[in-house]
Amino acid sequence: MTEFGGVPFSTEDAVLDSRRTDRSGSLVEGRPEAVLLPRDAADVAKALRWATSTGTPIVPRGAGTSLTGASTAGTGTVVLDLSGMNRIVSLSAADATAVVEPGVITADLDRAAATAGLRYAPDPASHEISTIGGNIATNAGGLRCAKYGVTRDSVLGLSVILADGTRIETGTRTFKGVAGYDLTGLFVGSEGTLGVVVAATVRLRPIPAGLTTIAASFTDAAAACTALAGVPGQPVIAELLDAAALSAVDAYLGTSLAARGSALLIVQVSSGVDGVLSALRPTAVSLEVSSDGDALLHARRSALPAIEQLGRPLIEDIAVPRSRLPEAITAIADIAARWQIPICTLAHAADGNLHPIIVDDPSRPAAAASAADEIFALALKLGGTITGEHGIGTLKREWLTRELDPANLTLQRGLKSLFDPNGILNPGKVL
Amino acid sequence: MTEFGGVPFSTEDAVLDSRRTDRSGSLVEGRPEAVLLPRDAADVAKALRWATSTGTPIVPRGAGTSLTGASTAGTGTVVLDLSGMNRIVSLSAADATAVVEPGVITADLDRAAATAGLRYAPDPASHEISTIGGNIATNAGGLRCAKYGVTRDSVLGLSVILADGTRIETGTRTFKGVAGYDLTGLFVGSEGTLGVVVAATVRLRPIPAGLTTIAASFTDAAAACTALAGVPGQPVIAELLDAAALSAVDAYLGTSLAARGSALLIVQVSSGVDGVLSALRPTAVSLEVSSDGDALLHARRSALPAIEQLGRPLIEDIAVPRSRLPEAITAIADIAARWQIPICTLAHAADGNLHPIIVDDPSRPAAAASAADEIFALALKLGGTITGEHGIGTLKREWLTRELDPANLTLQRGLKSLFDPNGILNPGKVL
Repeated sequence: MTEFGGVPFSTEDAVLDSRRTDRSGSLVEGRPEAVLLPRDAADVAKALRWATSTGTPIVPRGAGTSLTGASTAGTGTVVLDLSGMNRIVSLSAADATAVVEPGVITADLDRAAATAGLRYAPDPASHEISTIGGNIATNAGGLRCAKYGVTRDSVLGLSVILADGTRIETGTRTFKGVAGYDLTGLFVGSEGTLGVVVAATVRLRPIPAGLTTIAASFTDAAAACTALAGVPGQPVIAELLDAAALSAVDAYLGTSLAARGSALLIVQVSSGVDGVLSALRPTAVSLEVSSDGDALLHARRSALPAIEQLGRPLIEDIAVPRSRLPEAITAIADIAARWQIPICTLAHAADGNLHPIIVDDPSRPAAAASAADEIFALALKLGGTITGEHGIGTLKREWLTRELDPANLTLQRGLKSLFDPNGILNPGKVL
Repeated sequence: MTEFGGVPFSTEDAVLDSRRTDRSGSLVEGRPEAVLLPRDAADVAKALRWATSTGTPIVPRGAGTSLTGASTAGTGTVVLDLSGMNRIVSLSAADATAVVEPGVITADLDRAAATAGLRYAPDPASHEISTIGGNIATNAGGLRCAKYGVTRDSVLGLSVILADGTRIETGTRTFKGVAGYDLTGLFVGSEGTLGVVVAATVRLRPIPAGLTTIAASFTDAAAACTALAGVPGQPVIAELLDAAALSAVDAYLGTSLAARGSALLIVQVSSGVDGVLSALRPTAVSLEVSSDGDALLHARRSALPAIEQLGRPLIEDIAVPRSRLPEAITAIADIAARWQIPICTLAHAADGNLHPIIVDDPSRPAAAASAADEIFALALKLGGTITGEHGIGTLKREWLTRELDPANLTLQRGLKSLFDPNGILNPGKVL
């Protein structure tokens, strides 16, 4: 067989080095042997047939924005870089669907949908640089999933190349469909370990009319969560920033948010503004209402780059039942104090999904790791999960075995063997 | 081992006969040997351990409202009747979740949620008699899924007894979670062929404020669909009844809906009423607006009993891309004319999900079967699916092999073997 199945590739040092890691910054031993650059589904099928015939481990990759090491590639592996397959194949306003290749940038799809009065709802923080394929691989969330759910909720069907190069179609091109077991749901969130997505049919949503955004400061995060619990209806967005996050944002943007209160809650709704104000006003220490959501959300969207100014961030991603949110936030602050390490917490508050961002202290590497461990343990203690939307990758594999019961893990491994009997698809990830 | 693993059971003739079939009215050869009546998860585990040790096929069953023969039980099988496990274990307004046993009646859960200002969104037409377990087995939809999605979208996690009696927990108790492959999604819609659900954690939703319902009549169904396509935003409900359905309803309720126009569209929204009226008014031949949604929806909810007055209904369940809805409705009317058999069509129009209800003519059994076949072929031709929300059961198995590609079917069979290696769980269903 031709080298790499005849698929375009690069073995340049710079290319290999750039595909070793992802946004987690974590590394595995060595670097990949080559980076394959498929142009279409046929190239992906060729690459996987070649990989199966040679027993070569393949690391599928989009934009490399994984926060868990899901895209790390070391010695003996070959990277399958899907970022060049970035066509919006079709977009139908009448059907409110689009068919896209995996390398399409998330925000580009949203902008294309907007020209038809629609939105592609999932908006992970990385949406300006992440790919739809990567979002599918991790079942990515974002700010808007308070209202619209996660990536799974916007994926109707997939075209997937299996480990042996066979192409299958899953799901439907319709909003509903229950013909057979839910293979689509199985591929979504599987981090490239079960197959390689070469096209997705996604659902688009109407852009809500008359969005109003309310930013309210509170004396502490617990008070903000309590106030949010009284908000009637379903917000489109409900984001929380704690005191440490606000300080980082202030330093980065030159704002003075932290001076207003130790927690900032940003709620966006398409109706029922009065109800939101009634719920927040009694305990808010300051309150701002705007029809320009982008302005009020700018602080939230700037939080990660702001925190990155403080040092290398370890971005955690626990989710807890909504009522446990205040308890979780308080406990995370305690963990930061105990390990004397900065932890800035952002939360998709309506979903109970917290991002405690630990700022690594290179002189005390054990501190960050220990704080992370305590955060995972906290999530499980509160009836939650170690990952709401970022996935397992390499960094949370050990904790996955603590979250899932042994019989569940046995089935998980059985699924992996069924889909990838030779273990060539992103080995060492998830399980 | 004790008979039936020590689980309470009945072998009375009346009980066995009543568990032979489901609402599809279809039959398999003979009747079950016994009906097991588990009281709790431990009983279910005992039953499945016993079934595995004896190699006995088990037919799990809720209220028996399957429309596809998924609950039919014949010679040599034992029915596992879960309707007695009907406790709402917990309901948390603060978390907007509930934990329920599989035998809970769908509408009972919705009513319990309403006392906390919440709703359990999925509302299949059978919601007053169907069980949550049955809804999970088929991934049931309903009127409200225009806004809230199907049962899968309201199920966060499951407790499942596997074929060998092992209990596993899947998913999360939180709104988001991506720890491992999506086993929850795999069990939802699996029609009792992969495991038996003994508890579910479900998501509840805020009851929208200020619901308004608009009923509009049109000269034909295509005009109604065209008007609906112009409705801005996301309706909570958008239901369509064609001329044949309206005539049946008129005869049943003593109304005169068919005289107003050959198609009735019922749209419910929580905001943006003016936009709906602007979209519908230009082509509607009559229009009614009410804050009492139940009154306007009464015709829709009465449609099935009304059609049952005409004869035995074969309730089909195709879904098509939304833009193909007018074409589908026209083609179904053609099929009815060609086979000279009444077909009343109801549609969850916003989702492109059609229920062509064929009224069987016992003197010409081939007519109904042929019409159904043409409806399935039509769905696939229009880029749709043979089942939007009812599932495969026994009645659509052959058509499943036409909808799914061979590699997909191979994976489906692999999943079945992985979860149920001895083939004791609802054999002969789905695959």
